Amino acid sequence: MTKLLGDLEPVYVVGAGWHRYQRLSQVGYVDLGLTAVRGALDDAGLAWGDVDESFIGTGHLGMAVGRPMLKHLGALGKPLVHVENASASGSAAFRLGCVHVAAGISDVALVLGVDKPRSIYRAPTGTHGLADDAIVPFTHFSLLSGAYTAASGVTDEDLAQIAVKNHRNGSLNPNAHRQQERTLEEVLGGRRTAGSLTSLQCCPVGEGAAAVIVASAGAIARLGIDPAKAIRVASSATVTETTTSSDQEVTREVIARALHEAQTPPSEVDVFELHDAFTIEEAQYVEASGIAPPGKYVPMLKEGAFDIGGQCAVSTSGGLLAMGHPIGPTGVGQIGEIALQLRGSAGPRQHPGARVGLAHMVGLGAVGYAHVLRKD
Amino acid sequence: MTKLLGDLEPVYVVGAGWHRYQRLSQVGYVDLGLTAVRGALDDAGLAWGDVDESFIGTGHLGMAVGRPMLKHLGALGKPLVHVENASASGSAAFRLGCVHVAAGISDVALVLGVDKPRSIYRAPTGTHGLADDAIVPFTHFSLLSGAYTAASGVTDEDLAQIAVKNHRNGSLNPNAHRQQERTLEEVLGGRRTAGSLTSLQCCPVGEGAAAVIVASAGAIARLGIDPAKAIRVASSATVTETTTSSDQEVTREVIARALHEAQTPPSEVDVFELHDAFTIEEAQYVEASGIAPPGKYVPMLKEGAFDIGGQCAVSTSGGLLAMGHPIGPTGVGQIGEIALQLRGSAGPRQHPGARVGLAHMVGLGAVGYAHVLRKD
Repeated sequence: MTKLLGDLEPVYVVGAGWHRYQRLSQVGYVDLGLTAVRGALDDAGLAWGDVDESFIGTGHLGMAVGRPMLKHLGALGKPLVHVENASASGSAAFRLGCVHVAAGISDVALVLGVDKPRSIYRAPTGTHGLADDAIVPFTHFSLLSGAYTAASGVTDEDLAQIAVKNHRNGSLNPNAHRQQERTLEEVLGGRRTAGSLTSLQCCPVGEGAAAVIVASAGAIARLGIDPAKAIRVASSATVTETTTSSDQEVTREVIARALHEAQTPPSEVDVFELHDAFTIEEAQYVEASGIAPPGKYVPMLKEGAFDIGGQCAVSTSGGLLAMGHPIGPTGVGQIGEIALQLRGSAGPRQHPGARVGLAHMVGLGAVGYAHVLRKD
Repeated sequence: MTKLLGDLEPVYVVGAGWHRYQRLSQVGYVDLGLTAVRGALDDAGLAWGDVDESFIGTGHLGMAVGRPMLKHLGALGKPLVHVENASASGSAAFRLGCVHVAAGISDVALVLGVDKPRSIYRAPTGTHGLADDAIVPFTHFSLLSGAYTAASGVTDEDLAQIAVKNHRNGSLNPNAHRQQERTLEEVLGGRRTAGSLTSLQCCPVGEGAAAVIVASAGAIARLGIDPAKAIRVASSATVTETTTSSDQEVTREVIARALHEAQTPPSEVDVFELHDAFTIEEAQYVEASGIAPPGKYVPMLKEGAFDIGGQCAVSTSGGLLAMGHPIGPTGVGQIGEIALQLRGSAGPRQHPGARVGLAHMVGLGAVGYAHVLRKD
């Protein structure tokens, strides 16, 4: 039988750092990445020499970008590897870092997500006809929005409220790409991308970086890391699509596994960072997680259940809609946000009493990741 | 203290498969990869459903290429992740697969390397002046060749014999990019790439795929895998450069770690697949490994010490020089070659009595990997 992360040695997130997510600029990726790494090391109170191994999630940057970045901190001979799983690249890098620390291969692992936007290259498959009906994400999620509103009786305005909430959260986050509160009228009035979707209901894909430090209990003691900063990674789950599964079904499966492994019912989740690249996704995935019953997401949203201070604060960071989605950093930044929330260090966007967090990403609708973090 | 692979549960290579390494063709990467995966599954006597997790090493293919490839085998919901470490991408994927099986996260992992040549993209660092003196690999290794011959008194012809040996081995390997024996005159007479280096002393970078299946002892018993096919992964080591280290120093360090972990002196290594992208690298790295004393590589080469049937058969596959170096597949194919050799299944290129194998790759001169395999 295979083991779960929780069957191995306990793993903790002990530091988090960011470079603000933003529009493509003249700043090099090396500066983006190093800003996040230095922030995470400072936050953990660690030096570069304390890190045993580095996992770098990136989707856009091309070959071997870790070397010229990390050697600025000192070329110490420590292992590094680059990881890519489309939108879930950072989540994949985080899982690998957790597994290596939990297995004892490393005591302290750096997980870094860094990217600058670039037209996405995917090698041609050399097979024909399998994807003739493929549609672009805008259209796909617009169609899903239409199906959801038709089935549940909610309105386009209801779904647009998701963007209002997440932009409000993003306005409280100095690392967010979008830091401006938006009214319902502004969200609905923006440029239409497809069907009922407007631009503020679609995430910005810019540049940025996020880093977290993962450590064992032994390293926390040995290196004198503040135990109050150590947030336990209670579970790690990843699945890919099955023959017929949708993003929502991948999400249902992977979150169910992560919650089961963490022995956590959905009702215990205090903060939830999820893959809200489009507003409809938040509705679908909150229902897929079990935090809202099927069809109940919108009524709960209207009651404030997903606000900071509500039943379960969803996307306190601003989510992909306001925090942004620079690909490599996204999944790492989610973990960092949850760590801050569970420490009680999230400043003006702090969700009171947060003790359990859930992070979720989907890569290209095919690869799902979910992690549960818990304040011991 | 951090653990080594050998401190965890034993891990075995139980299957290997290839798509021939070759010049860029019209064959899609999906066909290349699937040919290798199906070969490895057949070799192990396993079905796709037996695989718990997949690690895909690729340098050229871009985003999320595993999905449209592996779903041809059945979309079963199992995890997959893409790994990149330049020339060592396949080696990095293999190490991750081994760690996951050794830690119990997976019982059976697929490690696949697949690539098609494409101009390499590396994001601009945004920093200036650090690499103004960078030179292309041809020139770099030509200069190293000159330094080696000047210091040791060997000749350019001596180093060219490395290409003769490796092309002879490659002529016995149906998966090699170059399958033609070459005389010393042919090697020396080819197009000059830089200084004394000729084209047959430089590896071809084409397309191809290699796959290996890694399994736990429990999986071998449960799935009825032939124990005679199971080759123990005795150690796994990876380092990056330090401030002043060269490729040879990275190699010395990482091989020393792998041999130490495997409790294997260099004299016990029977087969050695190494990063011979240029002839000079074989001389440097065989000496760095301790298999030849410093300055003694060429005399031993002339005595046939590194031939199939010699003291330690170096690059029985043909090495990068003849087998080829399609990037993603290279490090995976080395492991497969060693597994065949240790099983005694390498056909006309079998090294008699092979029981210990060493695989070594360097990514961009900065990231080194070494694995020791042992026939129990």
